[in-house]
Amino acid sequence: MGWVHARRNMGKVAFFDLRDRSGLVQVVVVPDELDEASKGVVDSIRPEYVLEIRGLVQERGAKQVNPDMATGTVEVLAKSVQVLNTAKTPPFEIDKDTRNVNEELRLQYRYLDLRSERMQKNIRERDRIISFFRRYMHQHDFVEIETPILMKGTPEGSREFIVPSRLHPGNFYVLPQSPQQFKQLSMVAGFERYFQIARCFRDEDSRGDRQPEFTQLDFEMSFVTQEDVLQYTEAMFTSLIKELYPTKRISQDPFPRLSYQESMEKYGTDKPDLRKDPSDPDELSFAWILDFPMFEKDEEGNITSMHHPFCSVKEEDKEKLMDGKDLFSIRANAYDLVLNGYELSSGSIRIHERDMQKRIFELLGISEEEQQLRFGHMLEAFEYGAPPHGGFAPGIDRIVMLLMAEPNIREVIAFAKTGDMKDLLMHAPSPLPNKALREAHIHISDEA
Amino acid sequence: MGWVHARRNMGKVAFFDLRDRSGLVQVVVVPDELDEASKGVVDSIRPEYVLEIRGLVQERGAKQVNPDMATGTVEVLAKSVQVLNTAKTPPFEIDKDTRNVNEELRLQYRYLDLRSERMQKNIRERDRIISFFRRYMHQHDFVEIETPILMKGTPEGSREFIVPSRLHPGNFYVLPQSPQQFKQLSMVAGFERYFQIARCFRDEDSRGDRQPEFTQLDFEMSFVTQEDVLQYTEAMFTSLIKELYPTKRISQDPFPRLSYQESMEKYGTDKPDLRKDPSDPDELSFAWILDFPMFEKDEEGNITSMHHPFCSVKEEDKEKLMDGKDLFSIRANAYDLVLNGYELSSGSIRIHERDMQKRIFELLGISEEEQQLRFGHMLEAFEYGAPPHGGFAPGIDRIVMLLMAEPNIREVIAFAKTGDMKDLLMHAPSPLPNKALREAHIHISDEA
Repeated sequence: MGWVHARRNMGKVAFFDLRDRSGLVQVVVVPDELDEASKGVVDSIRPEYVLEIRGLVQERGAKQVNPDMATGTVEVLAKSVQVLNTAKTPPFEIDKDTRNVNEELRLQYRYLDLRSERMQKNIRERDRIISFFRRYMHQHDFVEIETPILMKGTPEGSREFIVPSRLHPGNFYVLPQSPQQFKQLSMVAGFERYFQIARCFRDEDSRGDRQPEFTQLDFEMSFVTQEDVLQYTEAMFTSLIKELYPTKRISQDPFPRLSYQESMEKYGTDKPDLRKDPSDPDELSFAWILDFPMFEKDEEGNITSMHHPFCSVKEEDKEKLMDGKDLFSIRANAYDLVLNGYELSSGSIRIHERDMQKRIFELLGISEEEQQLRFGHMLEAFEYGAPPHGGFAPGIDRIVMLLMAEPNIREVIAFAKTGDMKDLLMHAPSPLPNKALREAHIHISDEA
Repeated sequence: MGWVHARRNMGKVAFFDLRDRSGLVQVVVVPDELDEASKGVVDSIRPEYVLEIRGLVQERGAKQVNPDMATGTVEVLAKSVQVLNTAKTPPFEIDKDTRNVNEELRLQYRYLDLRSERMQKNIRERDRIISFFRRYMHQHDFVEIETPILMKGTPEGSREFIVPSRLHPGNFYVLPQSPQQFKQLSMVAGFERYFQIARCFRDEDSRGDRQPEFTQLDFEMSFVTQEDVLQYTEAMFTSLIKELYPTKRISQDPFPRLSYQESMEKYGTDKPDLRKDPSDPDELSFAWILDFPMFEKDEEGNITSMHHPFCSVKEEDKEKLMDGKDLFSIRANAYDLVLNGYELSSGSIRIHERDMQKRIFELLGISEEEQQLRFGHMLEAFEYGAPPHGGFAPGIDRIVMLLMAEPNIREVIAFAKTGDMKDLLMHAPSPLPNKALREAHIHISDEA
């Protein structure tokens, strides 16, 4: 059973390339060999029809062997042909690479685009890569914990999707930008090694290669130093490449390490592309960027945390922190992993002491009242024996994109949205009936 | 390194039970054996403090051996003791089973509740069960595909969480009650065998043991009959029990099969509890319920689909469907799996033909215009060579609950919400600043 990939007629004989998830096989249809029921249907069969074929597998003649096809030495001589479903002519050719087809058309007919060989492979390789990470994590005694997707508003508030509650009028959940707080609380809960292939959400203005939802390999470890996290992560990525993509080469192993300052001075960016030959699709150039500043100035000139307010600061810089002096020179125990010029992940050793966490909030200008309202649960958790901990969260979409040598993450996401967050297949977002809004206790602003 | 589980003093000597993710070990602290820095801290140490201990592992004297402890034949003689973090006295005892502690208190201090032995085990077993399913699915050539969480509104509209779009004023995403449409589209896309450990969402009025978000083992297969899905599923559950819980017994193997009508007549329910001894925590009584009616009357007396409008109907009943006669006697290719009186999953062989799908919509009183608006993408997809397909979606929370012999699903969800959908740990849902609502182009209804 499968789909008609291509059809060729030679006189009375028809040849179908039949496609299923394992690949292609050639079917030969000779009218005299068919049962009565099948004879009438053969003429009508066109590409992408779904067929059930019964017949005999036979060797091809020496001249008919196709060395470009995995099943090229055999063919199926059809005895019966049944049409399971018909198909209109697809709006673009799916027996070829769809890379150059208009992308909006591909996203609208994603279920056809995904039939193409390259897209099938991308989605299946994505699963293989994620499965590798899961196996590696489990082998190293991590436990996968599912954390909530309906959660409470957090600091970076303005980029969070909000979800009105039907049961609690005027109240809202938000969708997590990352499970940051839950993974830290999992450390307080004594799991010591947590991971999750986690869906994350960010409602930010269209920025080219971003999606409103994305996937991270989120993990956190207790009783570790920055060096422990770096070494664990580096060994994991090295194993991934060796096991799954042995033809790819890691240009520098161990991965080079640069301080944030060095990277900015030398390359003018904290995401340097250190490949020797950027045109080589098999070169993978990982790099660690270390010693990020704890604080920076935001667009309005206010002090803000460069990564996030839960990062711990370097032992040597703690005095400055306590004195509130020279704040922008304070370095956090924060690190990024970069691959071929893309940031794969940010991580840090976190604060696990209540007083230190309060000091950071204070320096960030968060009032006592606001601290309690927004982070009271974290401050309280730190009072009950929180262990030292730290973690990381490599972005799955980018990893798969780079390993598949694709130009953007939409090519490795089955049902991707456009750069401006539209689902062209189902047409989301969309207006809702008033009843739905009324039940959620909201209405649309007049300005909208 | 670990947490102080218990402390006992005998004269000058102190005994700590130190707990980490591997279990407990006894630490003996004799002042004379300690280095100078450690001497001052020992007196202050209380339960749930986080310690780093260095010392010698030694055999216990014959009288001191504790047969109830995995490490009961040894102890650690401390040479240095460092306090990594202090701890206030927890609001409930976590060195005992927390089952009888006030549940609201447990949910508020979930990070302490999760330190208890039973909760640690529940969450780790949950991971083991999910890992089993993933392995089984991969071994049987299924591919895990991540489908969107921000999607378009669907038929069962009124129980969907809604998410306003910031970029597209007045438009909304909804959170999926299941990946139903995406998994069917994955079949149209030619993946043939899809699965996903999928987060699903339902905003319904508080109903005891429900959570607003829950997890399903969602799967779908092409070119299968109902019998194929039943046999695959049954073999999977049988393997799960044999491999992971060999001391549990499946009361009837193969699982008994009842028609919906039989079950209703004989047991007055479509979720019969067929256990021989309901007090035996090791008895597992699976049952298949088959031949569900395609249609039923809703509370207002309107015709509606019993499972959902994508179910196919029995070959023998197709004529009635076409004639529009005797509709409530039409049976769908729909099946439920029941375990110990709980519905684990609903599934069906789906419609894969456009005309049949339109006929069902028509009988459900969905106008042509509404069909296009809500399901146009599905009807269109069926025109491009959709294969016959069907699937299932066992609920992970209930499976883990029943295997752990817990009374409700909150006991097997790390960060569970209350029955009325509140997160007592972080305090969600919560009011949001006006700025956040303005950016989402909504405001709160006056009635709220």
